[in-house]
Amino acid sequence: MKKISVFNHISIDGFFAGPHGEIDWFKFIEKDDEFETYTHQQSQSSNTLVFGHTTYEMMKSYWPTPDAIKSDPDMANVMNNSKKIVFSKKLKSVEEGPNWKNIKLLHDINRGEILKLKEKEDITILGSGSIVQQFTDLGLIDSYQLVVVPVVLGEGKSMFKHVKMTNMKLVDSKTFKNGIVLHTYKPAESDEETKQAGKLSQN
Amino acid sequence: MKKISVFNHISIDGFFAGPHGEIDWFKFIEKDDEFETYTHQQSQSSNTLVFGHTTYEMMKSYWPTPDAIKSDPDMANVMNNSKKIVFSKKLKSVEEGPNWKNIKLLHDINRGEILKLKEKEDITILGSGSIVQQFTDLGLIDSYQLVVVPVVLGEGKSMFKHVKMTNMKLVDSKTFKNGIVLHTYKPAESDEETKQAGKLSQN
Repeated sequence: MKKISVFNHISIDGFFAGPHGEIDWFKFIEKDDEFETYTHQQSQSSNTLVFGHTTYEMMKSYWPTPDAIKSDPDMANVMNNSKKIVFSKKLKSVEEGPNWKNIKLLHDINRGEILKLKEKEDITILGSGSIVQQFTDLGLIDSYQLVVVPVVLGEGKSMFKHVKMTNMKLVDSKTFKNGIVLHTYKPAESDEETKQAGKLSQN
Repeated sequence: MKKISVFNHISIDGFFAGPHGEIDWFKFIEKDDEFETYTHQQSQSSNTLVFGHTTYEMMKSYWPTPDAIKSDPDMANVMNNSKKIVFSKKLKSVEEGPNWKNIKLLHDINRGEILKLKEKEDITILGSGSIVQQFTDLGLIDSYQLVVVPVVLGEGKSMFKHVKMTNMKLVDSKTFKNGIVLHTYKPAESDEETKQAGKLSQN
């Protein structure tokens, strides 16, 4: 079965970006071969990438540039060529370019439509706090991969802002030499749902 | 050398308490013998405990009661008899009782005074967001022990609210069967200070 995942870096105090969307604190991530290999492996999967408007604009302004392609060709290749969905009420259209392809614009988050998409492909949300919040409250997310960066921001944007209290299950915790801990959680409720589904199918 | 530590439970989204100080989400912590043994061992040390006003009142309303003494005698013994410091501008005096002893009230956080105290004893801050914030900004904390509980709150109190951006070093990460991950961090600057001190002493 296909999955919907979140993959985000967060600070010790739980922010995925500074108060104005800053990700300059990524500079505190020390070089670590094992960590780099791991994140590259993750990104090589042919997942459909999902963004909100803000994260989309940030990605678009960086990854198709010669700088990005030179400094991280593998990741640039993934970001530029993967199937991408951007959710935005404001955007009228999305522009493709020679280095920036396969973009689909959706104006609304429709649970049924997303579940239908999930039948065919694995989906990964990057950044995009408001999308994570809405997907979480709709019970759409199967897996949260949170890369805890050893830095305290003091203020910032939470990807769980105002979501309803959610009990999670730790699936995996992996520590890297550079002090990063990668937590993988899934909603604890999905177990209940599975049990419930099991019960129902036995009736 | 003695140490000043923080020991706090936090949610996945980084809160040590709900928006009104709630800790009812602790109920999501599944029973885990190894985790209980670990936290009990930690608490058996003869550290001086430090609280802000709010956390102090909460502790005082619970630990000296017959209920608390019956349900967790070891922890109640530690909480009720350990040396305790409460920082509060409002409180005029602190009241001791047969089950609630060794309390000292301080009105201000004085860096020199605290460092002098640290010469003699290990200090642990529990809860007390505003105290953690002030101690952090004064560079007073040697170790942060953060018990990450597998629950998302959506909103709450951060113990790092408005502290200046601080790079940390992961000292240890320990995963328990109940999905709790205990992160131990120290400020990365303390390494620099050590180097600096080393340099200075060689001149």
